[in-house]
Amino acid sequence: MADWQEISGGITAPRGYRSAGIRAGLKSSGLPDLALIVSDVEAIAAGVFTTSHVKAACVDYCRQSLQAKHSARAILCNAGQANAATGHQGWLDALESAMAVAQVLNIPSESVLLASTGVIGQRIRMDALKAGIPKLVAELSETGSDAAAGAIITTDLVTKSIALETMMGDRPVRIGGIAKGSGMIHPNMATMLAFVTCDAAVSPTLWQQMLSRAGDRSFNSITVDGDTSTNDSLIALANGQSRTPAITEMGAEAEKLEAMLTAVCQHLAKAIARDGEGATCLIEVQVTGAQDEQAARQIAKTIAGSSLVKSAIFGRDPNWGRIAAAAGRAGVPFEQENLKIKLGDILLMENGQPLPFDKKAASEYLKQAAQGAYLKEDTVLISVSIGTGSSSGKAWGCDLSYDYVKINAEYTT
Amino acid sequence: MADWQEISGGITAPRGYRSAGIRAGLKSSGLPDLALIVSDVEAIAAGVFTTSHVKAACVDYCRQSLQAKHSARAILCNAGQANAATGHQGWLDALESAMAVAQVLNIPSESVLLASTGVIGQRIRMDALKAGIPKLVAELSETGSDAAAGAIITTDLVTKSIALETMMGDRPVRIGGIAKGSGMIHPNMATMLAFVTCDAAVSPTLWQQMLSRAGDRSFNSITVDGDTSTNDSLIALANGQSRTPAITEMGAEAEKLEAMLTAVCQHLAKAIARDGEGATCLIEVQVTGAQDEQAARQIAKTIAGSSLVKSAIFGRDPNWGRIAAAAGRAGVPFEQENLKIKLGDILLMENGQPLPFDKKAASEYLKQAAQGAYLKEDTVLISVSIGTGSSSGKAWGCDLSYDYVKINAEYTT
Repeated sequence: MADWQEISGGITAPRGYRSAGIRAGLKSSGLPDLALIVSDVEAIAAGVFTTSHVKAACVDYCRQSLQAKHSARAILCNAGQANAATGHQGWLDALESAMAVAQVLNIPSESVLLASTGVIGQRIRMDALKAGIPKLVAELSETGSDAAAGAIITTDLVTKSIALETMMGDRPVRIGGIAKGSGMIHPNMATMLAFVTCDAAVSPTLWQQMLSRAGDRSFNSITVDGDTSTNDSLIALANGQSRTPAITEMGAEAEKLEAMLTAVCQHLAKAIARDGEGATCLIEVQVTGAQDEQAARQIAKTIAGSSLVKSAIFGRDPNWGRIAAAAGRAGVPFEQENLKIKLGDILLMENGQPLPFDKKAASEYLKQAAQGAYLKEDTVLISVSIGTGSSSGKAWGCDLSYDYVKINAEYTT
Repeated sequence: MADWQEISGGITAPRGYRSAGIRAGLKSSGLPDLALIVSDVEAIAAGVFTTSHVKAACVDYCRQSLQAKHSARAILCNAGQANAATGHQGWLDALESAMAVAQVLNIPSESVLLASTGVIGQRIRMDALKAGIPKLVAELSETGSDAAAGAIITTDLVTKSIALETMMGDRPVRIGGIAKGSGMIHPNMATMLAFVTCDAAVSPTLWQQMLSRAGDRSFNSITVDGDTSTNDSLIALANGQSRTPAITEMGAEAEKLEAMLTAVCQHLAKAIARDGEGATCLIEVQVTGAQDEQAARQIAKTIAGSSLVKSAIFGRDPNWGRIAAAAGRAGVPFEQENLKIKLGDILLMENGQPLPFDKKAASEYLKQAAQGAYLKEDTVLISVSIGTGSSSGKAWGCDLSYDYVKINAEYTT
């Protein structure tokens, strides 16, 4: 069992962090659109970014920055313009944004990381952004997590936030996180973004390794529509303000920290899938019996991303044939006579052959899970076993509804 | 330019072929559901099959058969039950089907190939199938292509058929084809199937190579919903009845034959994409400037398969940002400052940066292409250039509409 507990406070729950979110006039809607996260001291920083070959300027900027220097003091995030496909001018805008923050905070510009989300091909409204920064800094607060979480969203219906606490020796260590994302890309509105703060002391290499693995087990295991954005960024800071001993190699303490980091990332990732464009429920796919975790996750993600599985679940149809077919095309070899499929607790297929089952009860299960989706975090659980291997993996997605098409087919001049 | 012409006759246009399609009582709807294609003489046979690890019995059967013996006399295809996920009994049913055809035709059962489409997990109604075979054989005819084409479809709105003719020396060589497919998988109804007949004389190895390449450039380059079926099969016969010299190695004649084979496959593949579940138009994506054809095709297929691009086209929204983002995540490296995107003749992006364009005219282009889709085979053409490489590739898809969700979310007990 997890030996941590959920606490309030989001990204400002860990010691030594302040954040803020304001209306800077970047979004036409006038909603909050500029967020800042600041650590009191230089923090170890790690990042995982989009694998797309079309990248936003802020992604290039962060990658270069984190290659040169595995630490940071601040993360500035704007919503409204993605600063992707904006060429050299976009790069200059990114540099100028970082410098503007550095100047007001009186820190080196190399200590500022950046993220953007919004319309691809549009430059950031730099005048508004620069005018907003002093106000943003003035509003920094140790209770500012919600304000920051609200200023990074675009088409999201809800903000996504979490904080966990565990004891290391006699001192608490905390990790907080906020995220945004609804479609991997929305009508010109891009991006999955997540920012994680931690007050543990940890070596840069280990922190990056932990974050990469946690990212694979969370954000890289969700799919809303299969479209990877130009701006996807997961950035995690660890500032040592818990005053616990430095973690420099894998071991019990490191495993504990990584498990908590993974839990934070999974909470945020599931919140994004649940808030998928047009979604009525969260789908969790668990694959067991695989040769390795990567293979298990690949099958899980293929099932969670299948348009046919997603449509069937929207229709509350316990269509095991589509689950079997999606598993088969995931690119992972297995013997089909070992295939076993469960929906909730209902066994649909075993030894590669369909079983008689109570179709009405299975449909009812789908209906109930969907109804509870937002309130009780109920989930449609699909369990698939492919053999006798010892590895397992999970992925999360959401159903495919009329509203997904509607949201994405809207044409506004 | 192509030096062949389109002729009538479908799969019975090439010399030495007969076919038939009947109502055998396999489909609950009572529509035609059993087809047979027969060559007068043993024909060279090649096949390309689903890469899924969950395969139908008929796919296993054909693969084994074609490994042992690169020739066949007959192809039996049933619609109604997919004979996938039916275990050992499904395999026995496949064997029995082949034997039943062989007996009535008085040929070895090893000369019979099989294909099935329909509900996954259901056995073929063997009594109906066996009772139908004598009637099916009795109806074999040199004008039976349409009957066969009509008996292999499931949720398709139209049958798909083509025949081409070219001259080799002073003699005509013909290739005909029929296909089915609407979603890669439909509510329990599976499969892309295509059967090609040819009267050229060609060596088995060369014929298989030609078919594999033609399959990559056609059926493997279309996407309706990204879901690969358990039953996908492309089978091509070449029976030598054109009485033209045997083609045993690559050269001018072989290239001519392969080009015509590719044209037949592309015609059928595009017909499937155009008939995609809920589709209102055909989308053709052409990628140029790549280092190799495979890379170009991979980008083209990623764009054609993007839910966001597909939704935008359904909404008649010239959303170049989604095209750029899909190109970027295709897994093929390129410099984003080389990216160029055109919609029809309208340039949307060049040197990786958006251009001002007439958005209304671009939306109008999408509207007109869509309206003409069925009547004039008009197509939404997306052209993407990623660099200065000399290779190009194409892929085809269709838009994503409310009807796709509706068709696939229908829940019938």
